Amino acid sequence: MIGVALLGCGTVGSGVIKLLQKNSEIIDKRIGESIVIKKVLERDTEKCQLLEIKDELITQDIQEILDDQDIAIVVELIGGIEPAFSYIMAALARGKHVVTANKDLIAIKGKDIFDRAKEKGVDFYFEASVAGGIPIVYPMKQSLAANQIQEVIGILNGTTNYILSKMSQEGRDFNEVLAEAQQLGYAESDPSADVDGLDAARKIAILSSIAFNSRVTLDDVYVEGIRSITAADIQYAKELGYVIKLLAIAKENSQQKIEVRVHPAFLPKTHPMAGVNDVFNAVFLHGDAVGEIMHYGRGAGQMPTASAVFGDIIEIARNILHHSNARIGCSCYENKAIMDIKELEGEYYIRMIVEDRPGVLAGIAAVFGNNNVSIATVLQKTSKQGWAELILITHRVREIHLRDSLTVLKGLSIVGEIKNVIRLEGTDREVD
Amino acid sequence: MIGVALLGCGTVGSGVIKLLQKNSEIIDKRIGESIVIKKVLERDTEKCQLLEIKDELITQDIQEILDDQDIAIVVELIGGIEPAFSYIMAALARGKHVVTANKDLIAIKGKDIFDRAKEKGVDFYFEASVAGGIPIVYPMKQSLAANQIQEVIGILNGTTNYILSKMSQEGRDFNEVLAEAQQLGYAESDPSADVDGLDAARKIAILSSIAFNSRVTLDDVYVEGIRSITAADIQYAKELGYVIKLLAIAKENSQQKIEVRVHPAFLPKTHPMAGVNDVFNAVFLHGDAVGEIMHYGRGAGQMPTASAVFGDIIEIARNILHHSNARIGCSCYENKAIMDIKELEGEYYIRMIVEDRPGVLAGIAAVFGNNNVSIATVLQKTSKQGWAELILITHRVREIHLRDSLTVLKGLSIVGEIKNVIRLEGTDREVD
Repeated sequence: MIGVALLGCGTVGSGVIKLLQKNSEIIDKRIGESIVIKKVLERDTEKCQLLEIKDELITQDIQEILDDQDIAIVVELIGGIEPAFSYIMAALARGKHVVTANKDLIAIKGKDIFDRAKEKGVDFYFEASVAGGIPIVYPMKQSLAANQIQEVIGILNGTTNYILSKMSQEGRDFNEVLAEAQQLGYAESDPSADVDGLDAARKIAILSSIAFNSRVTLDDVYVEGIRSITAADIQYAKELGYVIKLLAIAKENSQQKIEVRVHPAFLPKTHPMAGVNDVFNAVFLHGDAVGEIMHYGRGAGQMPTASAVFGDIIEIARNILHHSNARIGCSCYENKAIMDIKELEGEYYIRMIVEDRPGVLAGIAAVFGNNNVSIATVLQKTSKQGWAELILITHRVREIHLRDSLTVLKGLSIVGEIKNVIRLEGTDREVD
Repeated sequence: MIGVALLGCGTVGSGVIKLLQKNSEIIDKRIGESIVIKKVLERDTEKCQLLEIKDELITQDIQEILDDQDIAIVVELIGGIEPAFSYIMAALARGKHVVTANKDLIAIKGKDIFDRAKEKGVDFYFEASVAGGIPIVYPMKQSLAANQIQEVIGILNGTTNYILSKMSQEGRDFNEVLAEAQQLGYAESDPSADVDGLDAARKIAILSSIAFNSRVTLDDVYVEGIRSITAADIQYAKELGYVIKLLAIAKENSQQKIEVRVHPAFLPKTHPMAGVNDVFNAVFLHGDAVGEIMHYGRGAGQMPTASAVFGDIIEIARNILHHSNARIGCSCYENKAIMDIKELEGEYYIRMIVEDRPGVLAGIAAVFGNNNVSIATVLQKTSKQGWAELILITHRVREIHLRDSLTVLKGLSIVGEIKNVIRLEGTDREVD
C-alpha cells in the first residue's frame, strides 16, 4: 500500500479522488501495489463528504499528515504561494514525496523546492503545472532527453485560446467574446492572469528551465497579452495566410542565450499549432535529433489535470516500490543569460492609419529603409475621409530597428496612428 | 560509466552513434553518468569506420558482446526476426537490458521477450518501434497510466501519409505518386509493407497491447491498404468536408472486446489529425480522464528514431544507477477478445456507377433500407453515356448489414460497378 495525502479537496483534488474511485483496479494492476488516500486536508469538510471520503480521513491540521508514517506522497492542490510553499517544504523535510499542479509556486519558488527535494533524496513532480493533462514535463526529461532542445512554443492558456478562436471563427471583438467567456465560466471575473499573459508566462518559465537546463523564472519572461487584438487584425491575418495565437516562446541561440516571451503572434495557417483551437493547449518543440514534436490536449479542467497529477503519483509509487526515488532531479545545472526583447530578430505585422495621398507610402518606406527594416508585404485598404489603412509585414529585422522606425513614424504628420504591431512566428520551419 | 553495445551500424545505428558524439555532454549531465559505446556488431566494418568508431570496438561475434561484463545495455538495430530475436533472448539471459526499434519482432515475438525480461528482472524498451521519434510508448505507461484508454488512432506510416497528402494536394493518382515517392526514397522498391498497411498494423498491435493491457498481435489486426484510393475519392472527400488518411485504429468497447484495424478512412477536416501531412506521424488517443491527446512528429528517419532509442537508453541508465530495473514491465495481464470486423458499427462512404434514369435511386435506397442501412448523404454526379456516379454516406450501421446490401446491389442491372467503400472515423468527438 502506498499512502497518499491530498492538500485541498477543490476541483482538482476532487478529480484525483474520483479518478482513484473509478480506476483503482487498473491503476493498482499497472503499478503492482495499491494507492490509498489516507488523509485529505480541507476546511470545507462538506466538499470531501460529497465524494464519500470518510470523516476520519478529513483533517484541518497539516501536522497530522506530516506525522503520519503511512503517508509517502503529499499532493499539494491548494494553489498560490502560501501556505502551499510551507506545507511542501515541511513534507519534503519529513522525507515525503510531493506532487503539485501549482505553476505559480514553481515559477517563483522552484529553486528552493528542488534543492530541498534533492537534499532529502525525495521526488518532487509537477506534470500538471504545465498544459494540464498533456504529457510534456516527463517526456522532455526522459523520451527526449538525448536532444538539445532548440525551441519550445506553447499554446498554454485555454482561456485566451478560446477567446482568439471565437474572435476568429465569428469575426467578433475581444471585449464581447471575453464577456461571453466569463458567462460560460471559461474566463475568470478578473481575467488578467489569462488575458494579460501571466499564466502562460509561468508555464513557459517552467518548460524553458527543463528544455535548456537553466533556471528561468517568471521575471525573465517578456509578456504581452491579447487585449490589443482586434477583429480587424484577425481578418488581415486570415487574408495573409495566418492565424493569431497567444504563443509562449522559448529559444536558445548559438551563444547559449535564452529568449523567452509570451505575446500574440501571427502563425502560418500550415503550422501544426494553427489548428489548435478553443480551450485546447499544445506544446510544440524542436530537438536537434527528433526534429518537430507537438503534444496536444486539454490544458485545464478537473479530470485532465487529475490525469497528470495521477501520472506523477504512479511514477513516484514505482520509485518507492523500487527504492529509486530522486531518479530524475532538476537539471538546471547551467546558468544561461536571458536575451532582452530588444535584441530579438523577427518578422513583424504593422497596421497603421496613414494619409491617403501620393508619396505617403514612399515616405513611410523611406523611414523603414533608413532604419534597416525591410518590408516584405504591403496591403493598403480603402480609405475613409482621406485616411487609409496600411498593413505591412517586414522581412526578418531586429526589434530595436523596428521600434526606432515606429518612433520616427509616430512623429510624422502623414501617419495618423499605429494601430498594432504583432510578431510573426513559425515562418522558418524546415519541412521536407 | 554505462556500457552500451549496438547490434547493427546501419541507418539508425549510425544515428545513435552520431547523437552520442554530438550530445554526450548534455546526455551525461542529465543522467549524472557517462554513456559509452563499448562494442558494435557489424559485418560491414567500413560503415562503422566512417563514423570514427575504433576498429577494436567493431566485432562480428555476438558472443564478445554477451561476454563483456562492461556492457549493460544491448541496442538491437538489425531488424527482422532472426538473428535479432536470438540475440535479444541471449542478451536478456545474460542479465543485459535491451532496447529495440524492431516492430516486426515485438508484434510477433513480444510475449517471449517480455516474459524473459521479467524473469531476469531486466529492462526491455521499444519506444522507437512505434511512431519513430514521437514519445508515445513511455507516456502511455507513465503519464497517462491512471486512464482507461478508450481508443488509440494513429497515422503510423509516413510513406502512405506522404502519398495520400500528395494525392490530395495535387489531385494526382496513386500509381503516379507512388512512383515519385520511390524515386525520392520515401517508398521502398517493394512498397507492400507500407501501402498494404502491414507496417501500420504492427505498430497498432503494439500500441493496443499497451492501451488495453491485453496482448494484441499482428494476426489480430484487420488490414486494408491504400491502393484502391483514387483521385476521385479524395476529391469527393474534400467536397464533403473530409480528408482521406490511412488510419490505424484500436478501441475497446463496453464488453471489453478490442477492435483493431488499419484501413483508409474519411476523417473530418476539423479533426486534429486531419492536418497531419507528408511524412509526419501522429498518435491520437482518448482516455477517460485526460480526454483527447495527440502526439505529433516524425515517424521515421535516422535522427528521430535515434532520439527515441536514446530516450530508452537514458531511462535504463537511470534505472541501473538507482538499481531499479524492471520498474515498468509489460502490462498485458488481461486476455480480451478481438472483435471481428463484421461486428463493426460505423459510417461508410460508397461510390458506385449506376444507370442514370428515374427510379434508380429509389431502387438502390430500397436495398439499403431492406438491410437496415440508413443513408445520410447522397451526391449524384454528371452522367456519362447513361451512367451516373453516385456517392453515398451512411448513418451509423453494422458492417455486416452494409456488406449484405452491397452483395444485393452488385446483382442488380441498374448498378454498373461499386467503385469504392471507405469507412468514416472521428465523426463522434465530444468537443466543448
